[in-house]
Amino acid sequence: MIEPVSYTFRVRYADTDQLGSYYNARALEWFEVARTELSREMGLSYAEWERRGAFLPLVEAHVRYRGRAVYDDLLKMEVWVEQEGLSKLRFSNRVMQAESGAPVCDGWTLHVVINAAGRPQKLPEWVRELMLPESSSGSGCAE
Amino acid sequence: MIEPVSYTFRVRYADTDQLGSYYNARALEWFEVARTELSREMGLSYAEWERRGAFLPLVEAHVRYRGRAVYDDLLKMEVWVEQEGLSKLRFSNRVMQAESGAPVCDGWTLHVVINAAGRPQKLPEWVRELMLPESSSGSGCAE
Amino acid sequence: MIEPVSYTFRVRYADTDQLGSYYNARALEWFEVARTELSREMGLSYAEWERRGAFLPLVEAHVRYRGRAVYDDLLKMEVWVEQEGLSKLRFSNRVMQAESGAPVCDGWTLHVVINAAGRPQKLPEWVRELMLPESSSGSGCAE
Amino acid sequence: MIEPVSYTFRVRYADTDQLGSYYNARALEWFEVARTELSREMGLSYAEWERRGAFLPLVEAHVRYRGRAVYDDLLKMEVWVEQEGLSKLRFSNRVMQAESGAPVCDGWTLHVVINAAGRPQKLPEWVRELMLPESSSGSGCAE
Repeated sequence: MIEPVSYTFRVRYADTDQLGSYYNARALEWFEVARTELSREMGLSYAEWERRGAFLPLVEAHVRYRGRAVYDDLLKMEVWVEQEGLSKLRFSNRVMQAESGAPVCDGWTLHVVINAAGRPQKLPEWVRELMLPESSSGSGCAE
Repeated sequence: MIEPVSYTFRVRYADTDQLGSYYNARALEWFEVARTELSREMGLSYAEWERRGAFLPLVEAHVRYRGRAVYDDLLKMEVWVEQEGLSKLRFSNRVMQAESGAPVCDGWTLHVVINAAGRPQKLPEWVRELMLPESSSGSGCAE
Repeated sequence: MIEPVSYTFRVRYADTDQLGSYYNARALEWFEVARTELSREMGLSYAEWERRGAFLPLVEAHVRYRGRAVYDDLLKMEVWVEQEGLSKLRFSNRVMQAESGAPVCDGWTLHVVINAAGRPQKLPEWVRELMLPESSSGSGCAE
Repeated sequence: MIEPVSYTFRVRYADTDQLGSYYNARALEWFEVARTELSREMGLSYAEWERRGAFLPLVEAHVRYRGRAVYDDLLKMEVWVEQEGLSKLRFSNRVMQAESGAPVCDGWTLHVVINAAGRPQKLPEWVRELMLPESSSGSGCAE
């Protein structure tokens, strides 16, 4: 499994609702940004995935709401990905307060890999290689 | 259990993303609108719930993405609610194309009832009555 | 000029922010829904406009924020459209509290008509006809 | 006038619509994030402004849409602020492609300073000082 990626971000005013914490659907937007950042860390932007004809529509999403996060709070996102079956990827997310570590929300999204025609396809070879950076970088264990 | 409520609505331009279908987080916004409509059908707007001191933050959400829905598609929402344990409510949602019945997405959200101070509380009596309209309307009077 | 169209809608929970009123960018989303509804009233859904190869990207938008609107408030939208120059359309919007008439926001968006290749084009004949329903219906003023 | 602040950010998948560029209302969300970043640069987070009882609701917003920006494009935001009259602040924004400098959108938002009770108030002294960092930092070193 590729290493989890983590980064920090701030709660936007647009993320809040009248209860003062973040609006529930924002969690899925945060998870989506995390997938973008993870793809970039893996060495190929998700925009490039789409240009290569691999699209990742969601088939399922799950969020557990764990704690409050108010406007301008600095949050920490952790995201990682695993293959599931022949043609699916599961991205997992954990969001916490950056300073205290207090949990904010976590969850996962399940994606099927489709081509431009909308057909599910086996995980392309180049995606599998992206997900195994240690092997593709020839870690040189033989030395 | 209170009867499911259903209504139709249209996919907004703002709901779309570059793949042409609806953006994944919109499903949770649609589910939220459905809770508002269900509350109203139950006889008390959710805004009134909050004025009475009963808030329903999410503790968990789940979405299954079933099919495409493009800008201006007329969709049908079905939503129903059930009590879970002492202080939780589970809202379930099913979204389909209004004409063909083709599935678009479904899922559920789990909520804990809290008071204005943020403390979980037993489901208030007036909420339980809202959820059992048949009994509160004196059904079975013929016996 | 085609008659203004008006309809009512409710403030969604997702529209609110931590100040309790609607988040400022929602005004532009409401204006967009209004354009959809106006197009339908004119006899051709905007989705159909795009299928016919006429796209209406914004070139300019203006909003005046006039008053509060909180979750579940019933608002009234008024929207109308006018041609501007050879290839532009200006949609104007007015949003108020449905019951009291208290102003919520108003503004306008200016759009250039482009074809599928992204080129500005003269307002298509069928659009001009949509905008002059009284003449296309042969109002027979000569009788 | 305080120096303009600039920073880069990426177009999110959630920002796109079916035409492939950014959805029009996102411009106002980007402008809002810019105000947050500008406030922080001025030495006091906007969250802190609100804690001190100074709120900045919008009274007017204007956007000019200048060019496309697609998913994952790296954009550059420039934002600056000026006082207007006794109790208003005007924030101006310019968004361009970070690499090419190609314009994406620009505009401004006009805000009235109110207190927690919702009353307009003169620009607080501490806000004026934030806006004149050169004087508050003991300028005049040439004397």
